[in-house]
Order: sequence, then structure tokens, then C-alpha cells
Amino acid sequence: MNEFELINQLQSRVNGWMPAEVESALLGIGDDAAVLQCPAGQQLVVTVDTLVEGVHFVPQSSAADIGFKALAVNLSDLAAMGATPAWFFLALTLPEVSPRWIDAFSHGLSVLSEQSRIQLCGGDTTSGPLSVTITAMGLVNPGEALTRGGARPGDLVVVSGFCGLASYALKQIEQGARPAEKAVQAMNRPEPRLKLGRLLAGKANACIDISDGLAADLAHIAKASGLGAEIELWRLPVPAELAGLPQVDRWEHQLSGGDDYELCFALSPERAVELKEWAEQADVELTVIGRITSGSDVQFLREDGGRFSPARRGFDHFPGVQA
Amino acid sequence: MNEFELINQLQSRVNGWMPAEVESALLGIGDDAAVLQCPAGQQLVVTVDTLVEGVHFVPQSSAADIGFKALAVNLSDLAAMGATPAWFFLALTLPEVSPRWIDAFSHGLSVLSEQSRIQLCGGDTTSGPLSVTITAMGLVNPGEALTRGGARPGDLVVVSGFCGLASYALKQIEQGARPAEKAVQAMNRPEPRLKLGRLLAGKANACIDISDGLAADLAHIAKASGLGAEIELWRLPVPAELAGLPQVDRWEHQLSGGDDYELCFALSPERAVELKEWAEQADVELTVIGRITSGSDVQFLREDGGRFSPARRGFDHFPGVQA
Repeated sequence: MNEFELINQLQSRVNGWMPAEVESALLGIGDDAAVLQCPAGQQLVVTVDTLVEGVHFVPQSSAADIGFKALAVNLSDLAAMGATPAWFFLALTLPEVSPRWIDAFSHGLSVLSEQSRIQLCGGDTTSGPLSVTITAMGLVNPGEALTRGGARPGDLVVVSGFCGLASYALKQIEQGARPAEKAVQAMNRPEPRLKLGRLLAGKANACIDISDGLAADLAHIAKASGLGAEIELWRLPVPAELAGLPQVDRWEHQLSGGDDYELCFALSPERAVELKEWAEQADVELTVIGRITSGSDVQFLREDGGRFSPARRGFDHFPGVQA
Repeated sequence: MNEFELINQLQSRVNGWMPAEVESALLGIGDDAAVLQCPAGQQLVVTVDTLVEGVHFVPQSSAADIGFKALAVNLSDLAAMGATPAWFFLALTLPEVSPRWIDAFSHGLSVLSEQSRIQLCGGDTTSGPLSVTITAMGLVNPGEALTRGGARPGDLVVVSGFCGLASYALKQIEQGARPAEKAVQAMNRPEPRLKLGRLLAGKANACIDISDGLAADLAHIAKASGLGAEIELWRLPVPAELAGLPQVDRWEHQLSGGDDYELCFALSPERAVELKEWAEQADVELTVIGRITSGSDVQFLREDGGRFSPARRGFDHFPGVQA
């Protein structure tokens, strides 16, 4: 298998789902670049994320899980913007080409690309230490993209699904334990909240996906909006797998674990009546966990009236370097 | 310097050139994704290329050269499509953050981003083995994108500039010699032929940039067009630095060296009169080196009537793996 055969295998596998009637790239894989037609009256949403072996996944990770997750983390960014997926580009760096690895990788990728109806339009394959960079592009109606700024004092803070499962699974594996299947799924096969993001487009005041941890990502919304937030810890939805943990350990996973890929958004209180319908349509729990304040920081309130400070606030790739 | 400071430094350095009146991204760096408005009536051209340490550059390469070249190879793909650069995204994987390295890297990048008026709109920074993946996006009038297909029998094969310098410089360095400055420039700071690409848009019948070597890339045009080609070796422009080499060694560099980033295009003979003006406007040599044939392979003709077969035809990242 040479470089061209590799690309062909990837393409046929990942785009195999595409029915002929789908509006596709004008020119896809196989030239110097792809040519795309952005539909009139739509805006383009573009995001890039890299997964590196040893940082974002362990050497034992299955190729299928790596393929799935590399696309999932990018789709999660599109979801957080309220965009509908359209096209993606894959830059794959591999130490060697194992046809079996490629087959499993492209299978994992294709499960999600088919489900989310996003077309592989190009990329690059190079030899080197294993890493996957995906550029994902989506479409949104003008002015409806969800940003981190735009929250208003009094807005409800809402979170989808459950936070903390992925980091709990990782910690269990590090300790030699075998995590529950649902936690492993949360870590290896996160489900991007695309349906929810589309429902929120033009309606939520601010939105972010929880990749760095709820505390850090909510702080991004607060900072970009020039405001603060108050979270009532007893309102955080508790996944069954974390229910038996000491309260503080659980909060650390829920607030700082990261790798969750749920959406956290700020919503005008008068829209609260719509939450139930959105939850049903997007098939995901939606929980009001606090509100946006006119302050300048994010507070975590305990039911006894005290406050809680997570030991770490999210993931920084380069925390220790001095400028 | 943490991850956020790193991104801020990159952004201010690389986009520092942008005058306020330039049409910019609706939403750039700093959210989950960028939001872009593709101008009405334009098509979008998208390309992705990765540079990996030890594969595309040596560990001794300067950070400024890496920054320059990572963007250059992507702009070269836009040039080959006839596109005008618009936006780019940077996925940077670094083993550690040295503010000095980042400063030099972003300087090299900014020299070319300013020159080619392309805006950094987002990306990702991760820790891991050094590699740079850039996604570059450009614009082209509908139907005017240059592809590899579309050449016609009898078309002239034209090449810009000089081929072989970059691979000659690399070989000299590998042999412990000190290559001429112009060869080092060709290797470290290739000049994407953007002006030429724009002049050719809608006029050339097929076009490619010479990253894999003239022989391999011309074969891509021939294959995509379902045709062959004949190259008259004595017409190949000879860079002064290669003039003293034995003929066969020179041909190997010119035909198979790769890393050249010149454009090779197929042109209807009736357009030949325009070559002189294009060369002046784009400030680059344009040389007719052969023609497209109704055959199915690419032939290299010697002046004595014989034929020449390059020992290797371009660069394959994964040549040795069996399917």
C-alpha cells in the first residue's frame, strides 16, 4: 500500500455512505486542493483540532476509536457554534502504514462521518509520529453562529448530558482498574451534540463545548461576555458511575476533568420553557446549573452556603513554561 | 507562557499586517471555531499540508524557515488552483514552548502571510513531536479553478522558474558540503507562484505545483487528463547552480528532486503568445518544455533522439508497505 492507495482506501471507506443526491464538493480528494461552493446566504464555520498519541490517546487506543474521536472533537466545536456539518479535511501522520490499522481507523471515522453527514474532501498523509489533525467545516445562517461572548446577566447556565465520565475512566485506567463501559464510551466515543447545537443556533446567547472542563470552559464564556457566573453544585447532573465517589472527588471530575464534549450555554430565562422540547428533539438531558452574573468570576456554590474551588481549572498543554 | 499566551503571541504577530479595511473573518481566533463569509459568486479552494520534523525539515532548521515553509507549501497548492489566498488555520504541535522559538516561527510565518495577504483565523496548539499542519483557504471565480484534469492533446507543457535546486541543496547538506545561497533559499523559503496562478485561472487547461518532482507531478496531470506527455529534456531551464553537474545527475534533480513549488501547466498553443506577458506580470521565467500527447505515459526525450527514465519518480511517504 503506497500513499495513493492509502488515500483511496480512506476515501472509499469514509465517503462510502454518500448517496448521489447529497450536495457534494465540486472537486474532492485527488487534486492540489478541493473546490467547494458555500451555499448562498450561508456562513462558513471552520475549526481545527489535533490528537497526538501519548497526549490525547494512549498507545493502546484502538485505531477505530482514534478515527472516531478525531472527528468527534471537531464536530463538537461545530455543534458549539450551532453549525451543520458539511466538509472535512484529514491530515494523518503515521509511523508506518498498516492496512489493518488504516481499515479500522477509517471505519471508526466513517461511523461518525456518515451519522453526521460530513464529507471527506481532502487532506495529507505523512510519515512521522502518530497524530491526526482534522479541519471541519460547517454552515450556519447569517448571524446565528453561537459564540462565547453574548451572555447577559441573569441568563440561565445550562449543560447537556453528564460531565466527568471521561476523566473518571482515564483515572481508573491509570490506577489499573477497569472502568464501566459507559465511562469508556464517554472517553473513546464522545457524541458531538450536533442536533442540540442546531436547535440553539440564533437562540442561546452564548455557547461552548466542554473540552477543557466545565469550570474552564464556563470561564471562557464569562470572560468573553465580560461577566461572571454562579454555579449551584447540587444542580450538576451526576452520572451513575460517579455517584459513589466522595463529593469533592466527584466535583473535580465534573468541573475540571475535561474531554466531555457536552455543550454549556447561556440562555435568556424567558426561553427556559423551550428546554424540555429541545431535550426531547436532541435526545439529551438539559440541566440548568446556575446563572450568569454581573460579576467577573465563576463561583461554585455548595448547598451549605460555602464555596468550592476546583484544584485545577482545565487542561493547559504548556502550563509550566515561563515567558 | 501558557497555551493562551502562545496563541495570542502568534495571532498578534501573524495578523499584525492587517489594515482595518481588509475584509476579514467575521469571527477569528478565540472561539470554538471561526466564522467566515465566502463572497457571493466565489468558490472556495481548500488545501491541507503537514510538515513533520525529520521528514520535511531537519532538526537544525530555523524556526523562521519552518514557519515560512509551512505556509508556502499550502499557498503553492492555492496557486496551482488559480486561487487568491484568504484565510488559514494553524495546527502546531510542539515538544515544549520556547518563547524565542515561537517568536521566530511566527516571524517567518508573518513574512509570507503579509506578502500574500492571508489571515490566520484559528487553529490548535498541542504538545507532542514537532509538526505543523496548515489548512489554507482561497477564493476563485466559478469554474475557473485549475485542476489536474483538462489537458488536451497538443497542449504545451510549461514550467515556471527552475526545478531541482531544493533537492540539490539537501543532497549537498547530506554530503557535508555548503550549498549556494540560492539553493538554500529554494529549499527553505520557496516562493509560491500566486500571481502566476491567478493569471492562469480560467486560461490554462490543467495545472499542478511541483512538490513531488516534475516527472511525478506531470504524470498526475497526464493521468487525470487521460493522456500522455513528451518532455524535451534540452528545454528544461537549468539553474546556474546545477550547470556543472553531469547531465544525468542534473536531470534527476530537475525531474525527481521535488520540493520545488513551481507550477507546471498545460496550455492551448494559441495562448502561447500570452506567456511573455504573464512571465513579466508574475515576475517569473516561463519555459515551454514539451507537449501533451494522446498517449498514456510521460516520455523524456534526449536531444540525441533517445529517451531518459528518471531513477525515481517523486516522493512516496510509504513506498515499502505491502497491502
